[in-house]
Amino acid sequence: MTALDQALAFLVEADRLKSVDRQTWLTDASRQENAAEHSWHAALTAMVLAPFAREPIQVDRAIRMLLLHDLVEIDAGDTFLYDAVASADQAERECAAADRLFGLLPADQSRADRALWDEFEAGQTPDARFAKAVDRVNPVMLNLATQGKGWRAHGIRLEQVLARNAGIAGPLPAVWDWLRARLEQAVVAGWLQP
Amino acid sequence: MTALDQALAFLVEADRLKSVDRQTWLTDASRQENAAEHSWHAALTAMVLAPFAREPIQVDRAIRMLLLHDLVEIDAGDTFLYDAVASADQAERECAAADRLFGLLPADQSRADRALWDEFEAGQTPDARFAKAVDRVNPVMLNLATQGKGWRAHGIRLEQVLARNAGIAGPLPAVWDWLRARLEQAVVAGWLQP
Ligand SMILES: [Ca+2]
Repeated sequence: MTALDQALAFLVEADRLKSVDRQTWLTDASRQENAAEHSWHAALTAMVLAPFAREPIQVDRAIRMLLLHDLVEIDAGDTFLYDAVASADQAERECAAADRLFGLLPADQSRADRALWDEFEAGQTPDARFAKAVDRVNPVMLNLATQGKGWRAHGIRLEQVLARNAGIAGPLPAVWDWLRARLEQAVVAGWLQP
Repeated sequence: MTALDQALAFLVEADRLKSVDRQTWLTDASRQENAAEHSWHAALTAMVLAPFAREPIQVDRAIRMLLLHDLVEIDAGDTFLYDAVASADQAERECAAADRLFGLLPADQSRADRALWDEFEAGQTPDARFAKAVDRVNPVMLNLATQGKGWRAHGIRLEQVLARNAGIAGPLPAVWDWLRARLEQAVVAGWLQP
């Protein structure tokens, strides 16, 4: 296989992310979103929320991380944020998936993209912290837009949402304040358990 | 409205792109793809095919263009590449959509993102030519992966595919050669009209 054969085979394989469904519903509540369109929405969100970042970041690195971040779900599936059982071996399953999927790419790119994915997963650099915060924003926004459709289906409580999404607060403090106020209103409205 | 209110309202509106269906089928032929997941696939493709670009490009600018390029379809709908009637007033409809959608963003970002979209549409810079070429690759790949499902549904001919996708040749010559060979095989296999 040439490097181009490898690149194109990777892109065909990546198409399967469009069939990985998530627990979040579209704003019109017509269906649950999939991990590919979520990845687009997250990358777009990085562009749009970059001016609200607390610390200096390279937005384009965060965008690349977000384009790659969910590819492992092709093998490992989507792990619902509030599912503690599935979360237990999630890292192991996703690591094996990263080995296989990034292994499809030509060698140079395989190393570079795997390094970006590892950096995102570790969440220790400003770019990765920002990308991880961005990744959390839309699911909360979509739940708010659908009167808590995903939360209600699973009986999610306010403290769970606050705990699981607290990583937004550091990189995007103004966004976190904005969301917290709406989350308290969501409890009053009965979309989210107190 | 604060700038943050505007940014978040834009992101909620952008969610609607997930409901704009295209004429291309997923590789497993389970359903047609939508414009949001296509945008993710295109941005990922820019990352992966950058090493095959003929001229020097800033890949991250092309990625941003591809994240934005189909947003106008929220208002204007998807225009099938081979539909000459719908293509006639496409530019006008999409321009009005760009006015409305980019107009939702905070002023600075509105100008910057609209300029990127205009640059993509004009296709005159190396980054825009590359982004437009990348945008064309996956629909051909997905058709090849589904035995020409989208082509067969509309009785598309080889010369149409070659004419409509010829913009791949300049920015991505090796990709174009790769695809052309498969397109000729697709005709032999009966997936594409001669
Ligand atoms: Ca995610």
